[in-house]
Amino acid sequence: MSLKLTIIGSGSAVPTIGRGVTSQYLNFNERRFLIDCGEGTQLQLRKYKVKFQRLQAIFISHLHGDHYLGLVGLLSSMSLLGRTKKLSIYGPSELEELLRIQFKVAAIHFNFELEFIHLEKDVDAIVFEDKIISVRAFPVKHRIACWGFRFDEKKKEKNVNPSKIEEHSLNLEEILAVKRGQDVVREASYLRNEELTLADAKLVSYAFSSDTTYFSKMAEYVSGVDLLYHEATFLEKHADRARATKHSTALQAAQVAKDGGVGKLILGHFSARYKDGQEIEDEAKTIFMNTQAVNDGDEFNL
Amino acid sequence: MSLKLTIIGSGSAVPTIGRGVTSQYLNFNERRFLIDCGEGTQLQLRKYKVKFQRLQAIFISHLHGDHYLGLVGLLSSMSLLGRTKKLSIYGPSELEELLRIQFKVAAIHFNFELEFIHLEKDVDAIVFEDKIISVRAFPVKHRIACWGFRFDEKKKEKNVNPSKIEEHSLNLEEILAVKRGQDVVREASYLRNEELTLADAKLVSYAFSSDTTYFSKMAEYVSGVDLLYHEATFLEKHADRARATKHSTALQAAQVAKDGGVGKLILGHFSARYKDGQEIEDEAKTIFMNTQAVNDGDEFNL
Repeated sequence: MSLKLTIIGSGSAVPTIGRGVTSQYLNFNERRFLIDCGEGTQLQLRKYKVKFQRLQAIFISHLHGDHYLGLVGLLSSMSLLGRTKKLSIYGPSELEELLRIQFKVAAIHFNFELEFIHLEKDVDAIVFEDKIISVRAFPVKHRIACWGFRFDEKKKEKNVNPSKIEEHSLNLEEILAVKRGQDVVREASYLRNEELTLADAKLVSYAFSSDTTYFSKMAEYVSGVDLLYHEATFLEKHADRARATKHSTALQAAQVAKDGGVGKLILGHFSARYKDGQEIEDEAKTIFMNTQAVNDGDEFNL
Repeated sequence: MSLKLTIIGSGSAVPTIGRGVTSQYLNFNERRFLIDCGEGTQLQLRKYKVKFQRLQAIFISHLHGDHYLGLVGLLSSMSLLGRTKKLSIYGPSELEELLRIQFKVAAIHFNFELEFIHLEKDVDAIVFEDKIISVRAFPVKHRIACWGFRFDEKKKEKNVNPSKIEEHSLNLEEILAVKRGQDVVREASYLRNEELTLADAKLVSYAFSSDTTYFSKMAEYVSGVDLLYHEATFLEKHADRARATKHSTALQAAQVAKDGGVGKLILGHFSARYKDGQEIEDEAKTIFMNTQAVNDGDEFNL
C-alpha cells in the first residue's frame, strides 16, 4: 500500500504569490483524489505536475471560497482538454446547485459523467469504499457546515504462513477460513489463527481535518492515523481571533494530534499575518514533536 | 486626460503558468476599472501591483469561466481586507444571481455596497457616464450573450483664447456661450466660434471587444478609438476553428482595426496551440501595421 500526499495550496482565505489556497492531492494506492479546490488550483496542479485528468474523485470540505472556487475552472479545463472518464464530487448539497447554474450560464456541456455525492450535515459516515480503502466524512465545527475526511486502508485478509500449510496439511476450506481470521477446529486438534498466519502489515491512513475550531471529539475522528493534516490558522497568542473565526491555534492542533495518537502532524492554512510557518511549527512542537508546517509543493510518502 | 491600460491576463480558456486568463485594468483619468476577471485575477493584480481596493467598477463581458470566475474570490478578498467603498459591477443579469448564491452559501457579508448594473441583451448603450468620460457596452457575437466596452473621453467645453477676450472685450455671458461652442452675435458684428477658441485637445478613447466572431459592424462600434483590444484566438489557417467556436483570427481583428480607423491594435486571447503571440502579430500586421500581441503585465499609456 502506498500513499502520497502533495500539498497543492497551503494558505488561508486570500491567495498570495507564495501560497495558494487550500487544495491537496492524494494518491492512495493509485486511487487519485483531490481534497478541496480553492481558486487557482488548476494552475497549482500544473505547477506541481499533477495529471488532473486522472483524478477519480474530488472532496470539498465546505463552501468558503478558498476551498472550492477553483472547481468550475478545473472542471471546465478537464472538459476542454477532452476528458471522458467519470468524476465524482463529494461535498455539501448546495455545491451541486452552484456548479450546475454556472455550467448552464456558460453553456458548458461535459463529455464525461459528473456524479455528485452530497455530504449530510452533522453526519459521520463512510462515503466511499472499494476493496482496499475507505473514505469517511466527519463533521467538524466551523462557521458554516464543514467536514473532515479520513482515508483508511481496509483490514486485509490474513496471510497464511506457507510452512504451516505444509506442516498441518491445511485443505482449501481451512485455508480460506484462516484467511478470514478464523481458527481451525479439527476432531483431534485446535489450531489457533495466530499460529497459522504471518503478522499483519501496518494499515496506512491519512486524515484531513479542514477548517475547524478546537473540539475534543476531533481526536476520536482522527484517532491513530499515520498522518494528520490540521489547520493552524493562528498562534495561541491570537486564540481570541481563532475562537471568533472558528479556526484553530497551533497548540490546539497539536493537542488533537497528541490525544488522537497520530503518527505525524502537518499544519497549514496559516493566517497571512505570520511571515511563514516556523513560529506555528515551533509552538505545536511544544506538545507534539513530530510536527511540520507545510509549504505548497511539499510531498509526504507513507 | 491620461489613460493607462494594464494587461492582467492575456490567455484564453485555460490559464497557464505564463498567461493568466482575461482581465485588464484601466485607469482612465483616475477612474479605475477592471475589465473581466478570470480565475486567478486577484493574484495577477497583486503581481502587477494594482491596488484593487481602489477599483470603482468592474465590467464583465460574458459568463464564460475565463472571464468571470475570479470575481467571487476578488470580492471576498476586498471584504476581508476591509473595503468600505462602494463597488459597481456591470455584467449579464445572471451574474448577480450567481454571485449572490455564492455569497449566501459562504455566509459572506460585505461591509461595502455592491451595485449590480445588468447589461441588456443585444443592446448598445452608454452604461456609465460622469463629467469627463463615458462607457458604452455594445453587443458582440459569441456563443453566449457577450458585450464589448468602449471608454471615451467626453467632448470638452471650448477653450476661449485669452487674447480674443481682450481684443473683443467679451463679457461673461459671451464667454460662457463661446465655451459651449456658440458664436457671438452683436448688433454691429458677428464673431465666429472658431476665431475665438483654441484648437480642441484630442479626445482619448479605448475599446475592448471581448470574445467574438468577426462581424462588420464591430468596426463601427470601435470606430476611431486610439487603442483597440481585439481577441485573436486563432491564425487564419485555423479559421474553421474560429468560426466553430465564434472567435476571431488575427487577420479578422486587423480588418476591424483597419475598417474602424483605430490608432493602435493590441491582440490577446491566443489559443494555447500557439507558442507565443508572434505569429499572430505578424499575420495581423499584413493588413494593419500598428499591431502588438500582448503579454501579461504589458502597459499602454495614452
